[in-house]
Order: sequence, then C-alpha cells, then structure tokens
Amino acid sequence: MLKQVLEQGREAADSALERLLPAATQHPTSIHQAMRHSVFAGGKRLRPILCMEAGRMVAQSLPAGIVDVGAALEMLHTYSLIHDDLPALDNDDLRRGRPTCHKVFGEAIAILAGDALQTQAYEVLSRLRCSAEACISIIREIARGTGTIDGMIGGQVVDLEAERTKPGLETLEYIHRSKTAALITASVVSGGIYAGATAAEVARLRIFGRSVGLAFQIVDDVLDVTQTSEQLGKTAGKDTAAEKTTYPALFGIDESLQKADSLVDQACSELNEFGTRASTLKDLARFLVERKK
Amino acid sequence: MLKQVLEQGREAADSALERLLPAATQHPTSIHQAMRHSVFAGGKRLRPILCMEAGRMVAQSLPAGIVDVGAALEMLHTYSLIHDDLPALDNDDLRRGRPTCHKVFGEAIAILAGDALQTQAYEVLSRLRCSAEACISIIREIARGTGTIDGMIGGQVVDLEAERTKPGLETLEYIHRSKTAALITASVVSGGIYAGATAAEVARLRIFGRSVGLAFQIVDDVLDVTQTSEQLGKTAGKDTAAEKTTYPALFGIDESLQKADSLVDQACSELNEFGTRASTLKDLARFLVERKK
Repeated sequence: MLKQVLEQGREAADSALERLLPAATQHPTSIHQAMRHSVFAGGKRLRPILCMEAGRMVAQSLPAGIVDVGAALEMLHTYSLIHDDLPALDNDDLRRGRPTCHKVFGEAIAILAGDALQTQAYEVLSRLRCSAEACISIIREIARGTGTIDGMIGGQVVDLEAERTKPGLETLEYIHRSKTAALITASVVSGGIYAGATAAEVARLRIFGRSVGLAFQIVDDVLDVTQTSEQLGKTAGKDTAAEKTTYPALFGIDESLQKADSLVDQACSELNEFGTRASTLKDLARFLVERKK
Repeated sequence: MLKQVLEQGREAADSALERLLPAATQHPTSIHQAMRHSVFAGGKRLRPILCMEAGRMVAQSLPAGIVDVGAALEMLHTYSLIHDDLPALDNDDLRRGRPTCHKVFGEAIAILAGDALQTQAYEVLSRLRCSAEACISIIREIARGTGTIDGMIGGQVVDLEAERTKPGLETLEYIHRSKTAALITASVVSGGIYAGATAAEVARLRIFGRSVGLAFQIVDDVLDVTQTSEQLGKTAGKDTAAEKTTYPALFGIDESLQKADSLVDQACSELNEFGTRASTLKDLARFLVERKK
C-alpha cells in the first residue's frame, strides 16, 4: 500500500516536473539541460508526495492540480542541492548517484541553474488551480520555509558556520529544523492549504511537519555513518570526516534512532483528529525514519 | 521635477528595503549582513521608481503600499548582481563603488545571500496590499521576467556563452532584452497591475518597458567605454578588455546613442494615451539614456 503511494507519487511528480520545466531543447539549452540534469537524477520526490498526501487527507481525495505544488517544492529542493554541492560550499562531486551539476556544466551554469529552479518554482506557484487567496498563502508559506530566519537558507548558513565552531545541541536542532524540517513542513502545510484546510488543520499539519522533518534529518545523519556512498548515491561518511556535530556524534546511533522514532510518534498523534484518513501520512512518516537511503 | 521624483523614489525604496529585509542583528547575522551590504550600496533604485511611477500614472496618485513591489524588484536586481559578480561568472571586485559581496563575506555566503534575496522578494510579493488576483499576476510577471526563457537568467546565460562565440546583432539583442529589459518591463508592468491597469494599459506598459530597457542597456554598454571605473562605481572598460560584442563595438558610440534615443521615442509614444499623466515616466525614460553612470 505504502509502496504504491511512493511509486505513484513519484511518477506523478516526475510527470509534472517534465511538463513544468522548460524543454532541454529550449533556447538557451545549456541552462535547461543543467536544470533537468539535477531534477531528473532519480530523487524519491518525498516533498511532493508529502504535499499530495496532506492534500488528499484534508480533502478526502487528491485535489486536482496539487501535483504542481509538489513539483515546485521539488524544484526548490533541487536548487538547494545544486548550490550546496558547489565548490564554495560542500564541494561535492556526487549527488543521487550522478555527477553534480557543476561537475557536468561548470560552476557558472550550476549557480544559474539553481537560481532558475527557484524562479521557476515561483512561476509554477503563480499558476496554481486553487483560489488566489490559497495560492498566495502557499507562496508565503514556501518562501518563509526556504528563507533565512528559520528556513532552509538560514539552516544552511548556520551549518556552514558550524563546521568551524562545533555547536551544541541547541544549534544542531536549529540547523536541522531550518535546513530540512522547514521545507518538509512547508510541503505538508501547502498541501493542506491547497486542499482547503482550516486554520486548526493547518496548525496540526505544521506540528506534524516539524517533527517528521527533524526525525528525517536525524536519520539522514545516521545513514551518513552507517551506509556506503554506493548505497546512498552520495558521498557517505562526510560528517565524520569533517568532525561535524551530528545527532549520532552527540548521542550515538541507537539513541538517535530512538529520538527519531519518538518524534514520529509525536507527529502521528497530531493527526489523530483526521481519523483513518491520516493513515497514509502516518505510514509515510514511519517510512522516512525506517528508510535505508 | 525629475530630480525630485528620483530622490523621493530612492528614499521611499530605501526605507521599504530597510523595513522588508531582516535586521543585520537577526540570527544568522552573516547572511543578513551580506544581503544588506549589497542592497544598501547606493543603488539608484531605478526599478522601484519605474514601478511606482507606472502605478502613479495608472491610478492618478501613488497607490498605497506599491513601494513594496519596488523593494522586491530591487532585491531581485541585487541578487542578480551578487551572483554575476562571483568568480565563476564575471569575477568582479567592485560594484556600486564598494567591494562585491563575495570579497567581503566569502563565496559561500555570497551565493546564499543572492539566493536569499530572491526568496525574500517572493515573500514580500506574497504580502502585498493589492487584491489576491493582482498579487498573483505580479508574481507571475516578475518570475517570468527573471527566468530562463526570455528573462534575466536566460540573458545572463547567453551573455556568458557569448564571451566565447562573438555573437551577431540578433544574439546581442536577445541578451539585452532578456538580461536587462525583461526586469525593467516587469517593473513597469507590475506597477501598472498593482494600480489596477486594464489589459490594454498593461500592453502599453509592456511595450514601453521593452524599448526603455533595451535603450538602457545600450547606454550601459556605451558608458562602459566612455566612463572611468571611478565614475561608474564598477569596473569600466570590461567589455572592450573581454572583446565582447556590444552595441558600441558593432555600431560605434554615436550610432548606438541614436538607436537608444529612437527607442526612447518609441517607448514614449506608447504612453500618449495616458495624456499628461505620462510625463514623469517619459522624463524617466529620457533620463535613463542621458545618465552618466
């Protein structure tokens, strides 16, 4: 059942991305090829799937056109990966099992391809099929979740600076909550808004997203220690090599996984009000901490 | 009269940017300092001023809150400058008379500061005081004008590639229209939409913006040849040093300036329907080709 949700969600997101990204033959071709290189590198499309399933839970069936919100979220996620991988940041050669964007297209085009995926995301979000009010709420939610204050860029900045400063648990939680959990939260919240969620429902989705997002990043840190590069499709063991402060470095692997489990329990209990309609989102939350890559 | 429009417009834009950008003391401080370093480097705020004056012309008085659209446009313009100046792109040390963002904050923070200014622009645009429908139209217009197909990023990509290929006039026009004119067009069009312009009025503003934007870039190329770095506040003579194809390289300085003048004439005639209300925008258009930096 969950396997089907993941597969069908990935296919729907891929097909929307295919439709919503400029063709590789569109002038100027280099930038469109670079955008597509990174977007179509075999991602799991977890953010689009979380968005769609949140929408399905709220509306009791999948709202028409919601996959476009998911595609925009995936464009934003991919832009952040392209820029994170640049030589000036993480300097990574491998991502989702393929050479990173700047390795194939050069740094200049990689910087612009990241920029362009962010721009394209907002163009897509300005053409949604929901009400104009919902559309603006979604844009606000996503801009905030990817911004500097408690969003994705803020987390990335503190993460960069933490490589020098060996932060404690509080800073580590800020990094995780901002760098990863904020976009995951924006994914489920925007799916809910698209489906017409009430303010109370949005509040529940927000708490769900925050807990699941933090659990997701804890598991990511654990996988960096326990899996090989081949298994992950990206360079493993980087955190240990960089002597980075991570959950497993602070608490060990077992306690980190227990913390992740307990966060998922909290997240799921937030959805009890939705009754049996919440079962897919709950299964997804469990899957995110039990995944192997 | 025009001097007053320029000064008051710049002050209004500066004060909106001050209000709409996170404080330099806001955690994480490095990114907010970097964003502000580049935004508050003494720009003329031409895009906000064009936006506000287009709105004033359409609505017959300055629409309340329109300066926020202008601030978002200036954030987008500044993000493009920060990324253009990076070592992987134009590798420039000087911008608006100050060291470029990456010279002061390092490449990683400069990349993220550019990203964050784009994100912040859309957050600002999702909180406008106009109708939700107008707000979405503005976001769509601006995303398109800064995108890859005939927008700012597309122009930047072709410009980068033209350094190797010595393009002809057609490619040069594509670069100018996309890299510069598209955001100037989005500025006047979004000002018009904010003020409640009809489709016919938007169409006129679009033609005005395209012609003025192209004239603006022609003059920019001429100034690169005729002015010193000190006069411009950025490195002069770069196009000649790079043997770039430009209007002055193809046609000489006099013919380039005649072309710019004639484009401004065309642009202004588009506004005749607005009667005397168009006089400030027309004056601004003239100013853009007569400026010295």
